[in-house]
Amino acid sequence: MAQPNIVLIVADNLGWGELGCYGGGALRGAPTPRIDQLAREGTLLHNFNVESDCVPTRSALMSGRHPIRTGCLQSVPPGLPQGLTRWEVTLAQVLSQAGYAAAHFGKWHLGDIEGRYPSDRGFDEWYGIPRTTDESQFTSTVGFDPSVVDLPYIMEGRRGEPSRQVKLYDLDSRRGIDEELVDRSVAFMQREVGRGTPFFLYLPLVHLHFPTLPHKDFAGRTGNGDFADSMVEMDHRVGQIVDEVERLGIAQDTLFIFCSDNGPEFRAPYRGTAGPWRGTYHTAMEGSLRVPFIARWPGRVPAGRVSNEVVHVTDLFTTLAAVGEGEVPADRPIDGVDQRAFLFGETEKSAREGFIFYIKQEMRAVKWRDWKLHFYWEPEVNQGQGKLESPYLFNLTRDPKEETDVLVFNTWVLGPVLKMIKAFNDSCERSPNTRPGAPDPA
Amino acid sequence: MAQPNIVLIVADNLGWGELGCYGGGALRGAPTPRIDQLAREGTLLHNFNVESDCVPTRSALMSGRHPIRTGCLQSVPPGLPQGLTRWEVTLAQVLSQAGYAAAHFGKWHLGDIEGRYPSDRGFDEWYGIPRTTDESQFTSTVGFDPSVVDLPYIMEGRRGEPSRQVKLYDLDSRRGIDEELVDRSVAFMQREVGRGTPFFLYLPLVHLHFPTLPHKDFAGRTGNGDFADSMVEMDHRVGQIVDEVERLGIAQDTLFIFCSDNGPEFRAPYRGTAGPWRGTYHTAMEGSLRVPFIARWPGRVPAGRVSNEVVHVTDLFTTLAAVGEGEVPADRPIDGVDQRAFLFGETEKSAREGFIFYIKQEMRAVKWRDWKLHFYWEPEVNQGQGKLESPYLFNLTRDPKEETDVLVFNTWVLGPVLKMIKAFNDSCERSPNTRPGAPDPA
Repeated sequence: MAQPNIVLIVADNLGWGELGCYGGGALRGAPTPRIDQLAREGTLLHNFNVESDCVPTRSALMSGRHPIRTGCLQSVPPGLPQGLTRWEVTLAQVLSQAGYAAAHFGKWHLGDIEGRYPSDRGFDEWYGIPRTTDESQFTSTVGFDPSVVDLPYIMEGRRGEPSRQVKLYDLDSRRGIDEELVDRSVAFMQREVGRGTPFFLYLPLVHLHFPTLPHKDFAGRTGNGDFADSMVEMDHRVGQIVDEVERLGIAQDTLFIFCSDNGPEFRAPYRGTAGPWRGTYHTAMEGSLRVPFIARWPGRVPAGRVSNEVVHVTDLFTTLAAVGEGEVPADRPIDGVDQRAFLFGETEKSAREGFIFYIKQEMRAVKWRDWKLHFYWEPEVNQGQGKLESPYLFNLTRDPKEETDVLVFNTWVLGPVLKMIKAFNDSCERSPNTRPGAPDPA
Repeated sequence: MAQPNIVLIVADNLGWGELGCYGGGALRGAPTPRIDQLAREGTLLHNFNVESDCVPTRSALMSGRHPIRTGCLQSVPPGLPQGLTRWEVTLAQVLSQAGYAAAHFGKWHLGDIEGRYPSDRGFDEWYGIPRTTDESQFTSTVGFDPSVVDLPYIMEGRRGEPSRQVKLYDLDSRRGIDEELVDRSVAFMQREVGRGTPFFLYLPLVHLHFPTLPHKDFAGRTGNGDFADSMVEMDHRVGQIVDEVERLGIAQDTLFIFCSDNGPEFRAPYRGTAGPWRGTYHTAMEGSLRVPFIARWPGRVPAGRVSNEVVHVTDLFTTLAAVGEGEVPADRPIDGVDQRAFLFGETEKSAREGFIFYIKQEMRAVKWRDWKLHFYWEPEVNQGQGKLESPYLFNLTRDPKEETDVLVFNTWVLGPVLKMIKAFNDSCERSPNTRPGAPDPA
């Protein structure tokens, strides 16, 4: 098969340090044998980088562009403008035009109005939540007033039809949703196999987003509480997809990717861990930037390989488009780069050396090789010191926890970093950014 | 051979997160293939616990007793009373009496006066430094005045003879000392093999203690600076010992242990990392308590095993004494427990569930199962808040970085913890502690 099937599983708020293959697993009271096995069969990245949180990363993945360009700067409640405008070209559109059947089962978070649902944006079908999982708490909150906010629903839709509400998204359906997502994913793959066309299964799981509540079959499984039970469930869900790919005999024809959308949660009792890195999502620390990433494609992606090369979530857009022989838009800046040569082991080097990192409207930091320059300092969420008059420079090899500013000894690093910023700013001048909440073009 | 040879290599200030097999290695710019291989051939512990710093841990290892009992509470400069009194029984004495040839090559730090050197305390011979490596900076410090402090020397000695100064311990000899220690270790093993008696090689390396300066052959090796170069050298040194054990054909008869004495350094530019754990040595955080530990004995210690069971450095005294068929003193409290059944894989469970943790005279914390109760709060050195009116309780599985006090929800844990403390305090009443700096008994 020239065009492989693509299975892309994205966990929610899964920090770098949680999985067994990243030093967590049993230490976190939650062994993850299925994902660990996937890592042994494929390539595991130590330096896969994402945006600051959910909407920014998912928009970057779907568009190949940094959120500052697309206006997808943050999560917003239902009833307020949000999501990717229809001017953006999604990965699903690209692959669909290249002949892929495309399905989305899970959390979208890139638009919750007609015209912006997954089935309006390149997917043939979808099932899941249009926004996010905090909302599953709404209806069980003391004092909740349904007259002032839209109720959250699990929804579904098909290409060319309006999406519809399926059921309330509450604590009960939150516990059950990942099972449903996997069931639908399995059914989708079963339907698609043998049609002679490849498929793109985008499965953004709801685990481990807060409230991190496991399916009833997993409640109490570990003896280490809801978070560990949920992680064990997540590992099981990934294993179910792996098993079905195997059972269908398509493992050799399937690029299988598992990653996370952002760093760990910071809020107790759902606080996660980024392992050796400092910080959580919503910061510019390595614990926010780096998340798990595993890719498996037997015979194509080297097995048992571990790399610390810098890769960025926008690269997934460009690389998967290229793998699927799709066409990337040429009329706008695309931040993702084609990582096929690196992913397939033809080179040990990533196709990029660094990237810029925004939180909302602020350029917080730039990573370049194993250096990071911070323009703002907020090592823990809401403990920020604001903009730095003199930026902090850290060497991430020698100082992985970003503790000792060494700019004074290494000002040469400013050259390449500031050139990256200039190139980025120039590109924004040539192709202006979309403001947050912008309507779709006429 | 009923009594195996024992090789015990102790690195200095090597944090949990540094080695490849603990999630560091290449990420730290310093691959450690030899030690990683040792881990694959043996058992690696995730929860091996030590004392707060160098003297306390080394005294606990040599005596099987917490430092609060022996008075070995901290490092002190030359010329001041320090070390284990001669009333204590060392592991070297125990093994020597059981028929072992015993050699010490490296850093002692348990007494720098006649009668307290290694060759006075059970070792047949020694070579190394009586105290510690900070002192190698003395003679190159701006303003150093040799009239007010004893100069530091590398020394050597043989049982029954006075120890003697070999050469100045300065930055130059600091770079070279680990090579010398390995050369002497190799020569010792070569001499001992075939004599029909087992040997105990205690090799407390000087790496990675500050100033962390590599041997000239390793300077510039990694391109990541002195610290990474030194770690690569340390891995090489361990590999040299492994190779010689192999070459001599005694691998099957040798219990080979590699561990560290305490958590990572906190002082820049020598700051190390404890990986996913918080804190450094001189704190009561997990980054201080947990250090690398690997044991290999083909056919006896299970290969490829990783365990998160609680083990304590005092257990090395008791366990190695038992392995060597030596006699542990019965006239005093010994804190170490016999871990042979656990180490040899006859049980998955450690012989202990927890331990008390002092820094100097203060009982800072108690670890029990995966809980930790802090009585003082000093997450970073010198950032302490002093004694806590209401202790902090953390669950180390759910909250590995010790961030969220959950005592209010888990007061049941106080029961077993306070019983441990009572038992310890009772034992100190029955057998009074030795005060720091106490002279030897007449």
